[in-house]
Amino acid sequence: MVVYLVGAGPGDPDLVTLKAIKALEMADVVVYDRLANEEILKYANGSEMIYVGKRAGAHSKKQEEINEILIEQGKKHDTVVRLKGGDPFVFGRGGEEMMALLGEGIPVELVPGVTSAIGVPTTVGLPVTHRGVATSLTVVTGHEDPTKKEKQVQWNYNTDTIVILMGVGHLEENMREIKKHKDPQTPVCVIENGTMPDERIITGTLENIAQKDINPPALVIIGPVVDVFKSIKKLEDKL
Amino acid sequence: MVVYLVGAGPGDPDLVTLKAIKALEMADVVVYDRLANEEILKYANGSEMIYVGKRAGAHSKKQEEINEILIEQGKKHDTVVRLKGGDPFVFGRGGEEMMALLGEGIPVELVPGVTSAIGVPTTVGLPVTHRGVATSLTVVTGHEDPTKKEKQVQWNYNTDTIVILMGVGHLEENMREIKKHKDPQTPVCVIENGTMPDERIITGTLENIAQKDINPPALVIIGPVVDVFKSIKKLEDKL
Repeated sequence: MVVYLVGAGPGDPDLVTLKAIKALEMADVVVYDRLANEEILKYANGSEMIYVGKRAGAHSKKQEEINEILIEQGKKHDTVVRLKGGDPFVFGRGGEEMMALLGEGIPVELVPGVTSAIGVPTTVGLPVTHRGVATSLTVVTGHEDPTKKEKQVQWNYNTDTIVILMGVGHLEENMREIKKHKDPQTPVCVIENGTMPDERIITGTLENIAQKDINPPALVIIGPVVDVFKSIKKLEDKL
Repeated sequence: MVVYLVGAGPGDPDLVTLKAIKALEMADVVVYDRLANEEILKYANGSEMIYVGKRAGAHSKKQEEINEILIEQGKKHDTVVRLKGGDPFVFGRGGEEMMALLGEGIPVELVPGVTSAIGVPTTVGLPVTHRGVATSLTVVTGHEDPTKKEKQVQWNYNTDTIVILMGVGHLEENMREIKKHKDPQTPVCVIENGTMPDERIITGTLENIAQKDINPPALVIIGPVVDVFKSIKKLEDKL
């Protein structure tokens, strides 16, 4: 028995690694979240499928329930694949699942994925680092409730680039917090449905981005690299 | 004509994306750096190969020379692949190459890769984010000369996790700088030759890691997630 914790990448089924495809092909059962693109499940043709993500209007299964499902499946089958969007350890709660499985004596193999935080900006031609412009990059989740009393996310990040995953829900509050530490005119780029056919790119500043029409799922990129991206787009427009 | 800027991932040839493999299969010519693993070139069977990385004892080609080679090849061939380790935009100078090519009227397509900064810790079971422990992550290069007068890297990063790429050359100086802003007992994990057969893991603290026997290429991970990794290893040892 073994459970593979597998990263599915940002959405485009061609951005899955060969290792992930091999694990899916071997899987007796695939336990999967809401994915950016369910087409990725095609690589697991013939496997049993267990969905543990969010349904429209309903809450997602609690993490404890998911852990129990993984343990139960892990004990029953030779090969279980636990498939997650992006990378399993970038805000994917893969560490918790790994500890729960190991605690029950079930071996775990990790298959990293292309994290949306980097793969999505790279795909559109937005370099998250750029010589002379950005030599450091912070990745953070925008999902934390900013009214929560004991906040872990402080927003005073001093790296050149900040990438916020799940950045839409609390966009206005989060921009307000970041503005306390960065110039309100700092450029911001939002990428909706990154790497997918309905991908949409919106640019603005810390000051005005929250006033624009933005829908989840989306990634928020903050910093002078957004100006590099604009220069690149101008060159592309001339082609 | 088109030049694909392609990420080769951290080293394991199974951690290449399907999209990268497809680009390599189509390539008339592949322009590649020093890769963690040249086995990845097998996907470009039959293509012309141009090496532009560092030779033992010799300097790597200057970026301007590489740009010129890419422009020349881009004008000559239908499909050029520029292959880089990890992701082309994470300290890969992909942005500069993209601008040089577009400036000459050559279209560029981007293929993101699994960045070593995340893919290597994930593969060994070290979660770079973990609920209640780390909700933010900084990725930075350790390569910048710390005695350089106008330093861009400041080392006062306040995220829970810091990952340093190319972290060996200036390890001692960089740990000294980070210690000014973090507890000297903060745990540190170094992964040499990540995802490769000769992978080696060394743990320590900001205080003592630089005294250990460490050789490039290596990734440095700093923060309480290193303690999570140690707990995971203990559970694995009991299997």
